[in-house]
Amino acid sequence: MSSFHSRKAPKWLKHFITNANNSLTGKYNLYRGKKLNFLKVILILETSVLPTILPWVIFCGMYGFIVTILCKRFDFFNGFTNKNGVLTNAIFAFNIGFSLLLVFRTNTANERFWEGRKLWGSLVNATRNLAQGIYVIVKEKSHKDKVKKEATIRLLVAFAVAMKLHLRAEPLDEQLASLISEMQYLKLKETHHPPLQISLWIRDYLQYQHEHNSLDIYQLTALHNLVNELVDILGGCERILKTPMPLIYSIVLKQLLLIFCLVLPLEIVGDLGWWTGIVTAFITFILLSIEEIGSEIEEPFGHDPSDLPLDVICNTIQRNLEELISLAPSSNEFDWRA
Amino acid sequence: MSSFHSRKAPKWLKHFITNANNSLTGKYNLYRGKKLNFLKVILILETSVLPTILPWVIFCGMYGFIVTILCKRFDFFNGFTNKNGVLTNAIFAFNIGFSLLLVFRTNTANERFWEGRKLWGSLVNATRNLAQGIYVIVKEKSHKDKVKKEATIRLLVAFAVAMKLHLRAEPLDEQLASLISEMQYLKLKETHHPPLQISLWIRDYLQYQHEHNSLDIYQLTALHNLVNELVDILGGCERILKTPMPLIYSIVLKQLLLIFCLVLPLEIVGDLGWWTGIVTAFITFILLSIEEIGSEIEEPFGHDPSDLPLDVICNTIQRNLEELISLAPSSNEFDWRA
Amino acid sequence: MSSFHSRKAPKWLKHFITNANNSLTGKYNLYRGKKLNFLKVILILETSVLPTILPWVIFCGMYGFIVTILCKRFDFFNGFTNKNGVLTNAIFAFNIGFSLLLVFRTNTANERFWEGRKLWGSLVNATRNLAQGIYVIVKEKSHKDKVKKEATIRLLVAFAVAMKLHLRAEPLDEQLASLISEMQYLKLKETHHPPLQISLWIRDYLQYQHEHNSLDIYQLTALHNLVNELVDILGGCERILKTPMPLIYSIVLKQLLLIFCLVLPLEIVGDLGWWTGIVTAFITFILLSIEEIGSEIEEPFGHDPSDLPLDVICNTIQRNLEELISLAPSSNEFDWRA
Amino acid sequence: MSSFHSRKAPKWLKHFITNANNSLTGKYNLYRGKKLNFLKVILILETSVLPTILPWVIFCGMYGFIVTILCKRFDFFNGFTNKNGVLTNAIFAFNIGFSLLLVFRTNTANERFWEGRKLWGSLVNATRNLAQGIYVIVKEKSHKDKVKKEATIRLLVAFAVAMKLHLRAEPLDEQLASLISEMQYLKLKETHHPPLQISLWIRDYLQYQHEHNSLDIYQLTALHNLVNELVDILGGCERILKTPMPLIYSIVLKQLLLIFCLVLPLEIVGDLGWWTGIVTAFITFILLSIEEIGSEIEEPFGHDPSDLPLDVICNTIQRNLEELISLAPSSNEFDWRA
Amino acid sequence: MSSFHSRKAPKWLKHFITNANNSLTGKYNLYRGKKLNFLKVILILETSVLPTILPWVIFCGMYGFIVTILCKRFDFFNGFTNKNGVLTNAIFAFNIGFSLLLVFRTNTANERFWEGRKLWGSLVNATRNLAQGIYVIVKEKSHKDKVKKEATIRLLVAFAVAMKLHLRAEPLDEQLASLISEMQYLKLKETHHPPLQISLWIRDYLQYQHEHNSLDIYQLTALHNLVNELVDILGGCERILKTPMPLIYSIVLKQLLLIFCLVLPLEIVGDLGWWTGIVTAFITFILLSIEEIGSEIEEPFGHDPSDLPLDVICNTIQRNLEELISLAPSSNEFDWRA
Repeated sequence: MSSFHSRKAPKWLKHFITNANNSLTGKYNLYRGKKLNFLKVILILETSVLPTILPWVIFCGMYGFIVTILCKRFDFFNGFTNKNGVLTNAIFAFNIGFSLLLVFRTNTANERFWEGRKLWGSLVNATRNLAQGIYVIVKEKSHKDKVKKEATIRLLVAFAVAMKLHLRAEPLDEQLASLISEMQYLKLKETHHPPLQISLWIRDYLQYQHEHNSLDIYQLTALHNLVNELVDILGGCERILKTPMPLIYSIVLKQLLLIFCLVLPLEIVGDLGWWTGIVTAFITFILLSIEEIGSEIEEPFGHDPSDLPLDVICNTIQRNLEELISLAPSSNEFDWRA
Repeated sequence: MSSFHSRKAPKWLKHFITNANNSLTGKYNLYRGKKLNFLKVILILETSVLPTILPWVIFCGMYGFIVTILCKRFDFFNGFTNKNGVLTNAIFAFNIGFSLLLVFRTNTANERFWEGRKLWGSLVNATRNLAQGIYVIVKEKSHKDKVKKEATIRLLVAFAVAMKLHLRAEPLDEQLASLISEMQYLKLKETHHPPLQISLWIRDYLQYQHEHNSLDIYQLTALHNLVNELVDILGGCERILKTPMPLIYSIVLKQLLLIFCLVLPLEIVGDLGWWTGIVTAFITFILLSIEEIGSEIEEPFGHDPSDLPLDVICNTIQRNLEELISLAPSSNEFDWRA
Repeated sequence: MSSFHSRKAPKWLKHFITNANNSLTGKYNLYRGKKLNFLKVILILETSVLPTILPWVIFCGMYGFIVTILCKRFDFFNGFTNKNGVLTNAIFAFNIGFSLLLVFRTNTANERFWEGRKLWGSLVNATRNLAQGIYVIVKEKSHKDKVKKEATIRLLVAFAVAMKLHLRAEPLDEQLASLISEMQYLKLKETHHPPLQISLWIRDYLQYQHEHNSLDIYQLTALHNLVNELVDILGGCERILKTPMPLIYSIVLKQLLLIFCLVLPLEIVGDLGWWTGIVTAFITFILLSIEEIGSEIEEPFGHDPSDLPLDVICNTIQRNLEELISLAPSSNEFDWRA
Repeated sequence: MSSFHSRKAPKWLKHFITNANNSLTGKYNLYRGKKLNFLKVILILETSVLPTILPWVIFCGMYGFIVTILCKRFDFFNGFTNKNGVLTNAIFAFNIGFSLLLVFRTNTANERFWEGRKLWGSLVNATRNLAQGIYVIVKEKSHKDKVKKEATIRLLVAFAVAMKLHLRAEPLDEQLASLISEMQYLKLKETHHPPLQISLWIRDYLQYQHEHNSLDIYQLTALHNLVNELVDILGGCERILKTPMPLIYSIVLKQLLLIFCLVLPLEIVGDLGWWTGIVTAFITFILLSIEEIGSEIEEPFGHDPSDLPLDVICNTIQRNLEELISLAPSSNEFDWRA
Repeated sequence: MSSFHSRKAPKWLKHFITNANNSLTGKYNLYRGKKLNFLKVILILETSVLPTILPWVIFCGMYGFIVTILCKRFDFFNGFTNKNGVLTNAIFAFNIGFSLLLVFRTNTANERFWEGRKLWGSLVNATRNLAQGIYVIVKEKSHKDKVKKEATIRLLVAFAVAMKLHLRAEPLDEQLASLISEMQYLKLKETHHPPLQISLWIRDYLQYQHEHNSLDIYQLTALHNLVNELVDILGGCERILKTPMPLIYSIVLKQLLLIFCLVLPLEIVGDLGWWTGIVTAFITFILLSIEEIGSEIEEPFGHDPSDLPLDVICNTIQRNLEELISLAPSSNEFDWRA
């Protein structure tokens, strides 16, 4: 940062850079909970894209260079390039299909990303509502009831964590272990679908409380509906994970991208000469990076820097529910403002 | 695969191809549950499109070739082609209508595909919620009650399978037979709408349990609402199946595509000469394949490789519910973390 | 058909045509329940559009021809056409507004069509759920109760039929008369809003059953909610029927279309000569037919071949509910799989 | 009309004009409930737009004329116009931003219009459901109960009318006064938010009936939920009214429109000569009218001819509910079809 | 204003300006509740954008000027610019990606803005429904009950205010303090999530009333559902706040904007000569301001002039609920119209 704000830069430029800097780092901080330098944010985000597209960019650049040599030295492609606008019309029709698919892929990817985010947002809401409901509604007749209640509220956190691990196809981890009893942990290890098992335990607790007269049948059903919501959210995330954009579209899109980048140098070599390679590489870079970002965004549950910050969301849920548990228990005796 | 990773390929290229390979095969594996080679995936997907469009591509390519011969040998079309940009303006106006319809068709097709997927995702959620609800809520007074309960949970799987077969207009199959009693199977064979019949049986079971005091009236209604959801999902899928995109749009779109491909060679033959046929075939290929993919995606319940993996989803439902049934029955005696 | 598959056509062409043929006729069969020849389907669909646009197409074609004559014989418009790209820039700006409105109109029309279809799909679901609910839940104490129950289930079909007639502003017909009692038919003839009256009768029946202890208060409310859904669907369809796309948009769009078709020949006559008339007529045809299809699709409740197949949907509802009524009454004694 | 259908016009033209005429007037009749002549409909719709944009059109046309004079007589702008395609590239980039914003504005405006329509459609549904519910469910023990019931059903109409007046910032009118008692009218005059007050009265009535054992607690809650819906609809309309499209967008859009219309003559004067003024005025007219229509549609609750026909909708609600009230009271004694 | 309406301006111009003036100031007044002059509104809105983009505009303008000097004096860039349309094709492909991303960003930003507005609109509805529900349903047995009731209704306002402060990361303020008791204020200061705490108090009050027989179990659950809605709205706003548009998109978009503005002068310097700098600055201004507005709109909870008027909405809620509290208490004794 310090090297960036050199002494000679005019004041408004400094102010401007600080501004832009804060905006991006601020957003990144809100999003992933980490404070990072302006350039580091860009670097982190780009690194998830660059390694995949760089080989193609270099390849197309070199191909453009070879085309130039063949054209300049050996008079190749003359039939193609000496007529102004030879391919222009054909290319135009081609561009229709091409840009259409690129728009389509970007929109689809973003919709999937945002739908995933909405589902995790609903998870935050549903766990809050369930925890407040259990906390306020279920009657505590003994200390044991209170312990069970707190364990169930922690099961809600465990549901979120187990869902995160399930979506990432990762094994149970320590955070999860700290939220459930050992016996539950062992049982979870055996099942194929841990979050579903946890939701069953929560239902079990509710039904048990009802049978022991700590929970009215009417409110039991309302709480069951909130558990239904948890299962719906889980199913929604699995749907996004397991159903990619129709694969045939992404195959056709990649084919068109490749063809476009191969035809481009033939078309511009006559005008641009030795610049052909650089311009080709540059345009390849832009188109491929748009395609690649879409490809990354559309699977939002992974560990990529652009993916959803599932760890941050799980921690938010845990913090909220722990605060709820730590509240003074007898809130009913509150003094109401008179 | 091995022949693809030849010894002479540079390391980054190897790594890159592995990467791309895994990405596509990984997605395909998640989607359809089969592990296939990179190229096989592409082949499988393309084969559903190619047979339909190849005749047209060959036809347009040959037509382009004939146009070139007529033009070069017999000086045909000179009035048309010797003026630069003759049709350009008219073509431009034409392209507006044309590309508009192509975008429209692609978006509509994808929305139908995704709506179908959402409905099947809701089916997974609804069956999970219903099964967990029946499992936890309905009281078991005797062993016979337990048997009935398990049979009903299997009826939920049967509903999904019967719905799949109904959407594909296929007869009842063995998977379905294994999920229901023989008497039920015979009855289903007689009815015109098996899934509706199954939903009626589920309602019957619930009402019966209520009348025998194993199910509270309040919770009965909540479970009835989940059965309503099943029927809504069924109706939603039938709606997608039975109502195509307005047919008149697809007819007009195909007319325009044909006209475009017939006019194109006249326009480019002056500049491209003998390349005309190849370029025409190529552009025909791109536009038709976009149109054809849309046409395939918009009916997502069939057996095409791009269609929804209904078999995989049905199996997921069955696996989830079987795991639920196989759980230790007395989960109420769970030791709650203290 | 037979003349189409001439003996000399190559095999793949035959196969291809059969394929395309089946696809369109298959979709049409699913949609409207009639099996028709490939060409007849196209003809039926086109005939709803052609009569309206043909006069304009002929008019613009003749106008283009006259422009050519004036230009060639009397050297008119020379100030306009002898400069290459005279109007190009202005036309381009014009095209922005124009194509924007055409896209807008097509999308709006399709959304209205699909929303109408969704509402009718929900009607199918709601009647199924209501019928199954009434069938399973309402207790039958005497044979008279059973008769009333069946009459009420037929009232659900009558609701759908009355709604169809109401949306089409048609008088009560025989199908409706066969579903209700004579006294009800006479009463319906007097009211201004038959479907609303029918929904009131259904509510009445439910309330009556509740008051005679055949229906629990809780389940009564659940069934009332399904009747609420019927009324919501009715209101939704009336909304689509009574609120067209803002009329000012369609007026402006038609103005622009007219102006475009009048300016076009002036622009292309210099290049195309005697072809001007044909090209003008052709482009007019394309643009007008896109506009006209939109205009037809956006009112989906009529009798046009592209409108929603309301008769087919009503018959589906009737068939489903009749099958439900004809089922063995004592389904509770079913043998549960052991 | 009669002058339009002159005797010399060919038959198909007559038929065609009648057709087009009916279509537009028919739609307008459905929409606003008034039968008007073809040309009058166009005039009425245009008059809401023309007065605002005409000054600008005249201004731009005269500006174009002055530019032509300066160019032709004094050789101004030569540096600008004698190079073919001077500004073309720059203009192209400019058009991206410009057309993007115009599309954006049109779509946003239409979404707001349609969302407003949906809310008023839901109002129709909610009042129908509430009225039918109150009519069927609330028990009548005395004649006074019946009077109260009818007054409450009229309160629903009053809610719709009060909401219309509230959205238009108009004082209470006679239609409203005829629907409520004098005491209520005086009370409404005092409150700042009449519709909210009315919804409170409806709740009051329901709660009162419950406390006097004419309404079950369960059905009371279901009816309260329908009143919640009324309040949601009210809030939704207020949201549309009070939150315009981000104002900064419409400012930027108007700036760009102005700049475009000022730059255009400079660009085309070289080619078009004395036509410049007319062409400029014409293009200004098209772009401004699209912008202006959007600006009018996006506030759909006013008195403009393109706004929602709130009066018609309120009258529909009143007619429906009055018909309900006038029905034979003892519908329970209906003879059920046997 | 007065200086604007100079005496010499023609009457229609005056009328026109007044009209435009009223439209913008009227909308602004409705939106933010402040009456401001036409120009001041524009100034206020622009000032939030200008400071950020002006440096870039100046920079690009000067860069364009330097390019012109280098080109004119030192014959730089000749290889680039002396060929007509050198980069045109490449630029065109580039524009696809570029305009696509700009459209995408604008739409996404507006969707976020409008989703935020919808959530705050739902907050208004939910607080109204909750307040009316509590007011009508909860029985008052003593004066203390009435005081508690009013305090709870004020808690609803406190929830909205606390949510506003939470979204803006601001400390508790005086408005909030005036709505809750001192003890509650102290408690809120300690918690990390004030709105969640307030929602818990509201639930507590409801449960307490139920336990003291002032609130039926059935209606308790209905009111709990409305509190669930409050928590859902809170979670929805947090989701919008914490999840920006995928950052990688905005980085790529800014990169492309920069590159575009750097390449542009090279392309147009040959034609435009000394105008290059001004044109470059102008186009930079347009594109950057569209990008910047999007960037501002997409975080709608701040203090920017284009952000949502959260203060106005909170005050509306407070005014509505205070009016409800101030109503005559015994509304049940209302005289029903006879």
